[in-house]
Amino acid sequence: MPIITLTTDFGLRDGFVGTLKGVILGISPDARIVDISHSIAPQNILEGAYALARAFPFFPTGTVHVAVVDPGVGTRRRPIAARLGDQFFVGPDNGLFTPILEQIEQQQLPSKCIHLTNPDYWLPEVSSTFHGRDIFAPVAGYLSNGVALEKMGIPINNPVRITMLKPQRTDTGWIAHIKVVDVFGNLTTDLPASEVTNHEGTTFSLCGRSSHGLVDSYGHKQPGDLVALIDSENYIELAIVNGSAAQTLGARVGDTVEVSVKE
Amino acid sequence: MPIITLTTDFGLRDGFVGTLKGVILGISPDARIVDISHSIAPQNILEGAYALARAFPFFPTGTVHVAVVDPGVGTRRRPIAARLGDQFFVGPDNGLFTPILEQIEQQQLPSKCIHLTNPDYWLPEVSSTFHGRDIFAPVAGYLSNGVALEKMGIPINNPVRITMLKPQRTDTGWIAHIKVVDVFGNLTTDLPASEVTNHEGTTFSLCGRSSHGLVDSYGHKQPGDLVALIDSENYIELAIVNGSAAQTLGARVGDTVEVSVKE
Amino acid sequence: MPIITLTTDFGLRDGFVGTLKGVILGISPDARIVDISHSIAPQNILEGAYALARAFPFFPTGTVHVAVVDPGVGTRRRPIAARLGDQFFVGPDNGLFTPILEQIEQQQLPSKCIHLTNPDYWLPEVSSTFHGRDIFAPVAGYLSNGVALEKMGIPINNPVRITMLKPQRTDTGWIAHIKVVDVFGNLTTDLPASEVTNHEGTTFSLCGRSSHGLVDSYGHKQPGDLVALIDSENYIELAIVNGSAAQTLGARVGDTVEVSVKE
Repeated sequence: MPIITLTTDFGLRDGFVGTLKGVILGISPDARIVDISHSIAPQNILEGAYALARAFPFFPTGTVHVAVVDPGVGTRRRPIAARLGDQFFVGPDNGLFTPILEQIEQQQLPSKCIHLTNPDYWLPEVSSTFHGRDIFAPVAGYLSNGVALEKMGIPINNPVRITMLKPQRTDTGWIAHIKVVDVFGNLTTDLPASEVTNHEGTTFSLCGRSSHGLVDSYGHKQPGDLVALIDSENYIELAIVNGSAAQTLGARVGDTVEVSVKE
Repeated sequence: MPIITLTTDFGLRDGFVGTLKGVILGISPDARIVDISHSIAPQNILEGAYALARAFPFFPTGTVHVAVVDPGVGTRRRPIAARLGDQFFVGPDNGLFTPILEQIEQQQLPSKCIHLTNPDYWLPEVSSTFHGRDIFAPVAGYLSNGVALEKMGIPINNPVRITMLKPQRTDTGWIAHIKVVDVFGNLTTDLPASEVTNHEGTTFSLCGRSSHGLVDSYGHKQPGDLVALIDSENYIELAIVNGSAAQTLGARVGDTVEVSVKE
Repeated sequence: MPIITLTTDFGLRDGFVGTLKGVILGISPDARIVDISHSIAPQNILEGAYALARAFPFFPTGTVHVAVVDPGVGTRRRPIAARLGDQFFVGPDNGLFTPILEQIEQQQLPSKCIHLTNPDYWLPEVSSTFHGRDIFAPVAGYLSNGVALEKMGIPINNPVRITMLKPQRTDTGWIAHIKVVDVFGNLTTDLPASEVTNHEGTTFSLCGRSSHGLVDSYGHKQPGDLVALIDSENYIELAIVNGSAAQTLGARVGDTVEVSVKE
C-alpha cells in the first residue's frame, strides 16, 4: 500500500486536512495517509521545512510527501513535485524542501524536479486559495497510483530555496543558532554534533546561562539543570532537565548559542 | 475499503477519539478512519456542522461520516443515521447535519433519515454520557460493513435543524455575516460569491475597516492589507494578507459585513 | 491487519509522531496505526497512563499499544514490552502501564513482561533521547508482524508502578480524588460508581460547592448547574452542565471530593 504524508499549517479544527484526505482516497483508495504535522505556524515555511526534514528519512521507498505552507497560493509561485532520492515530494515552490534538497545533494542522490503544469492530475475546478486540495492532494494521489512524475509537468532545475542559518567558526569554537524549539521546549541548534569532539571541555552559552560539557541524556543531570546533548538527529541540543529551556531562558528560534572549546 | 470520518468536540488529549477508533476497528477491521476535526469548541453544534459540511463533498460514494457534538447526550434527543445523496451520516439529532441537509435538498438528491432504535448495532452496554463510543461508532462500523440503514431503526422525516444566518438584501447590496473563522484568522461569510458580480465595484466593510474590490488570492496585495476574495467553497471571504483578520479586526463568528455595490 | 496504537507527550507540531509512523510502516507495512493521544502534558506519566487505560479495553485482541512518556530516556530505566490479557504494550518501564496492570490482575488475566534487551528488533542506531523512534516503534512493528515477545528480551516480574490515589472510607462516605480533568472540564474521580448505592441521598462536595444526588446525564439539569453522574467508565464524575467544572470551580487533578451519604 502506498504511503502519503501530509505537512501543513492548516491546523486540526477547520476540516481542511480531512478534505485533503477525502480527495486523496477518492483517487488512491489504498493509500496510507500519515500526518507529519498540521500545526506549523501559519505561513512559517522554515518550520514546515524542518518538521518534514526530521521525519522523511524514516519513511519507506516510494513514499509521497505533501507539504503545504503556502503564503503565495494563487500567485505566480509554481506548484512543484520532485523525486529526491527514492521518495516523492509535492507542494508549492517556496523553499519548503530546502533542507531535503541539501541532504540529497550532500548524499549525491538522484533528484528530479517538475513544475506541475498538467491539469489532468488536478481536481476539475481549481480555486485560487486552496491548492492543497485542488492540486497537491490529487497529484499525490496519482503519484501513489504509479503515474510517472514526468507526465505531470515540465522539468525544472531551480526550485526556490530559503536561506537557512549556518553555524559560524570563531577563534574558540562556534556561534551556533537555535533551529527548532520543540514541544518540550528543547532547543535544537544548527551545529552538527560531529563538530564537537571534546565532550567534557566544551561550554555552551545562551541567554546568559552556560552549560559545561555534553551529557548522554536528560536524566543524567538534576531537574532544572541546563544541559547540552546530542539530539536524535545528531545536532547539538540545549535542554532543561524535566522543564522547558525555551520558557526558562526565553530562548527563540534564531537566537545564538556560543560554543567554546577549552584547549 | 470503506471510509469512516469523525467530527467531534472530544479534543485530542484524553483518548476519547482513540476509543471510538478501537470500537470501529473491532466491528469493521478494514475501515479507513479519517479525522475531520476533534477540535470543535465544546458543545458548539454550528462549528461542527460547518467543519463537516466543508469536507464531506470531497469523499467518495459510500463514506460514513460520524459527527458527535452532543450536549444532549443521555436525554431524549434521538440518535440518528441518514443516507444523504450517496453518503452516510451518523450522530445526535441536534442540527449537526443542517447545512448538509440543505445542500442535499438544493441539489434534489435522495435522502433517508432513521431514528436509531435497534440496540443490535450498539455496544452491549450503553452509558448515558458517551454515545459516540456506545452507539454512533458501532453503527458506523456496521454501516461500513454493508448493514442496511433500514435495519437500524425507524424512518423519520423531521431531523432537527439549527437556524443558520443568511445574508440579507439591502438597497446597495447585502448585509452578510461571518460564518467561520479559520485557523489563519480568515473570515468566511455566508454570502455566495455568485451574488457579487461587480468584482471591482463592490466594497466590503466590517469592524470599521473596508476593502474595495475582490482580489484573486492573498498574494495579490501587500502583507497587512485587508482583502476580500472568493474562498475555496465559493463564498466571500475577508482576510488580512499574511496575518489574522480575526485578530487584527477583533472579528467574530456572527459579526456583520456590509457589502455595497457601486452602480 | 494488525493494529498499533500510540500514546505520547510528543505533541503534534514537530513531526516526532510522523517519524514513529514511518518507522512502523517500514517494518509492518499493513499495520493500522491509531493515535490515542499525543497531547499528554510533557513527562506526565500519570496522565498518559489514564489516557491509555481509558482506550485500550475497546481494542481488538492482538492490538499493540505503544506508550512513550519518558523522562528517563537514555538512563538506566528499562525499555519493556508486555502481553497483558490479549493485548500487547510497549514503552519505558516507569509506571505508564500501572492502571492496566491493576485491571489485568483484578480480572486474573494472564500477563507476561519482558525487559527489551535484543537489539535485533531495534533500529540499527539507537539515540539516547528518542527511544520511541529507535526502540519502541520498531518493537511494536515486529510484534504486529507476529514476532514472539519472548525473543525480544528477558522476562521480568517487577515492572515499575506509580502510586495512584485511592478513595478513602470515612464515617459518612468517602474522600475521593479528581483523577482526570477532560477536555470539557469534566472531573472524573477515583470513586467507582458501584460504591454509591444511594443515588438520591448522596452529596458530593468540592471547592466549596455541593451537588446532591446523581443525575443520569448532563442534560437533566440546567446549564451552569454542578452535577454528579456515573461516567462512561463507571466512576463518579462531577460536571457543570454545558460548562467547564474545572474552570468554574478551579478544580485540579488530585483535589479531594467529599462524598457523604445520608442514612
